[in-house]
Amino acid sequence: MSELRQNLATREWVIIATERARRPHEFTDPARQLTHERPAHLAACPFCPGQEYEMPAPVLRWPAEGPWRLRVFPNKYAALSVNGEKSYALEGVRRKLTGVGYHEVLVESPLHNMSPACQSPRALTQTLRAFQTRGRVLSEDPRIEQIFYFKNHGPGAGTSLEHPHCQLLALPMVPHHVRMRIESQRAYVDDNAVCPYCVMMQRELIDGERIVGRNRYFVALVPFAATSPFEIWIIPRRHGPTFLDLSLNELEHLAELMRLLFGKLYHGLGDPDYNYIIHSAPLRDSASRYLHWYMSIVPRVTKAAGFELGSGMYINPALPEESAEFLRNQDPGQPLEDEEDEPVDQLRQSS
Amino acid sequence: MSELRQNLATREWVIIATERARRPHEFTDPARQLTHERPAHLAACPFCPGQEYEMPAPVLRWPAEGPWRLRVFPNKYAALSVNGEKSYALEGVRRKLTGVGYHEVLVESPLHNMSPACQSPRALTQTLRAFQTRGRVLSEDPRIEQIFYFKNHGPGAGTSLEHPHCQLLALPMVPHHVRMRIESQRAYVDDNAVCPYCVMMQRELIDGERIVGRNRYFVALVPFAATSPFEIWIIPRRHGPTFLDLSLNELEHLAELMRLLFGKLYHGLGDPDYNYIIHSAPLRDSASRYLHWYMSIVPRVTKAAGFELGSGMYINPALPEESAEFLRNQDPGQPLEDEEDEPVDQLRQSS
Repeated sequence: MSELRQNLATREWVIIATERARRPHEFTDPARQLTHERPAHLAACPFCPGQEYEMPAPVLRWPAEGPWRLRVFPNKYAALSVNGEKSYALEGVRRKLTGVGYHEVLVESPLHNMSPACQSPRALTQTLRAFQTRGRVLSEDPRIEQIFYFKNHGPGAGTSLEHPHCQLLALPMVPHHVRMRIESQRAYVDDNAVCPYCVMMQRELIDGERIVGRNRYFVALVPFAATSPFEIWIIPRRHGPTFLDLSLNELEHLAELMRLLFGKLYHGLGDPDYNYIIHSAPLRDSASRYLHWYMSIVPRVTKAAGFELGSGMYINPALPEESAEFLRNQDPGQPLEDEEDEPVDQLRQSS
Repeated sequence: MSELRQNLATREWVIIATERARRPHEFTDPARQLTHERPAHLAACPFCPGQEYEMPAPVLRWPAEGPWRLRVFPNKYAALSVNGEKSYALEGVRRKLTGVGYHEVLVESPLHNMSPACQSPRALTQTLRAFQTRGRVLSEDPRIEQIFYFKNHGPGAGTSLEHPHCQLLALPMVPHHVRMRIESQRAYVDDNAVCPYCVMMQRELIDGERIVGRNRYFVALVPFAATSPFEIWIIPRRHGPTFLDLSLNELEHLAELMRLLFGKLYHGLGDPDYNYIIHSAPLRDSASRYLHWYMSIVPRVTKAAGFELGSGMYINPALPEESAEFLRNQDPGQPLEDEEDEPVDQLRQSS
């Protein structure tokens, strides 16, 4: 019989559909070309060196001089506009708000084929540091209420551009879904006097069967109520609402786990499409003692259909325990990128 | 500049991204084979006549004797089990519930290539009547809390089976997302003393620019805060929480609008993948005077990426007003199915 499981932090239920369960290797596409088998440079790619003129001017470039290793610039097809006044209007039942905010692209590497699974931990740290740097700047804009940091890897995850890049969206409002999740979390704390993420992490460390990786500052696990096969949450051991206040040392530990997990997905599942998302508190909640930020990694191996659209809940055709065991057993391989270069200035000093 | 819009009934915001807006015809795939160009019968299709033995025995078959026109049977790969006790368990932070419930398949036609856009209004009425018939039976099971009725059309909407079919999922709990939507709706009524769906419908009828179709009992519109291009809501003019209490006359009027809309999507956009979902109240709320059921039709022409997964909100690259105008101007064509047959018994008498 199937089992329904509830994530106590989000209160969301999922159907773990054992009747239609697939073994982990059945999610692999053996015909797929791995990212690193692509060319390292493409003249037709707007994110490759030499074609920088095709994109808006960077708002961040590391290092400042010489060949760049990372660039951040406004999305050419931005969903939100940097300039303009934030203004609400309510006409009858139509509530609207001007589309002010930031939508930026972070190009992670000059190399066209250097996806996160192939990057050195230092390059991953650099990406996280760039997210933080931009996030701190944009947090100063009084029009902004929440910032989302995320990556779309592959067409099934919503990107058509192969060159490794992440995105950042700074919104002038807090999405209702986020507000509901925060209220669920507050209610859990009010009822139990402990943070559900802290408790989940501690229990899972004792159980062990859903743990995929861990280090001094972070724990990576497949949630008990994972909504899709191989979904992974990286939860910081230090309780806190926001990703923005992490030290460089913490970022390096996060990058170490990301390297491990991306390597396992890449080699174990044949480079699946995936998204990763940093769930950091709304800016007005960035000093809240209720909230606990985390990162989720969601391989896109299943598709939302009518049931999911209508109910907001998911059918997971893989047992979370099997997903975790499979991932634990995979070899993450080695980064394909050298670490011989000097770190960029921004990674020299600790914060 | 883009515009953010909030759906007052659900409180969900959407980014209407004018900077990346696409014209309606740009969502069409001209290379696509239309459903009716496929064969009318396939020996390899488990839903075609002659292969009934491949599926579980039907729980409903119309007509009862002779060649069938519609069948409902348990999903062979059901996400939930009919037999078993409903029992909750909480172990530490792991809350779970036995996976009891119903997951049924409704085959809409014996003809392999008779998708809803090609069906007669009577066939569509027959599908709705079958949903109702099964829904009423399953509502009697005390283990069931909510029933979802939906269709997945095409691989982008989550189905690999071409033969026209819908599904029904009867859950032993209410999804958190649904509960949050209900609370939003209640709060709106408490604050404004009117139902947001009723008000939305009335205002949109006055405005007219987002209306796609209407008849005596229903209004079809592209919501002001549509989450994706060509999203359509069919809202009943009669305020009520549940689809299950509709009269046959009302079902016929709903089928008439569905025929119009599916025809417009089929001919205007080249048979896009889509889902439709009937949003009917949880069973314990089926006498609530707060709630207003509706049907949504969601063409799957965009893809949820990291931002959508993290925020629960959507970026719509089409102006709802343009989507509605485009749909108003499309020819819905004619049903490819005759109406010459006698109606099945279940459609003879009024309810």
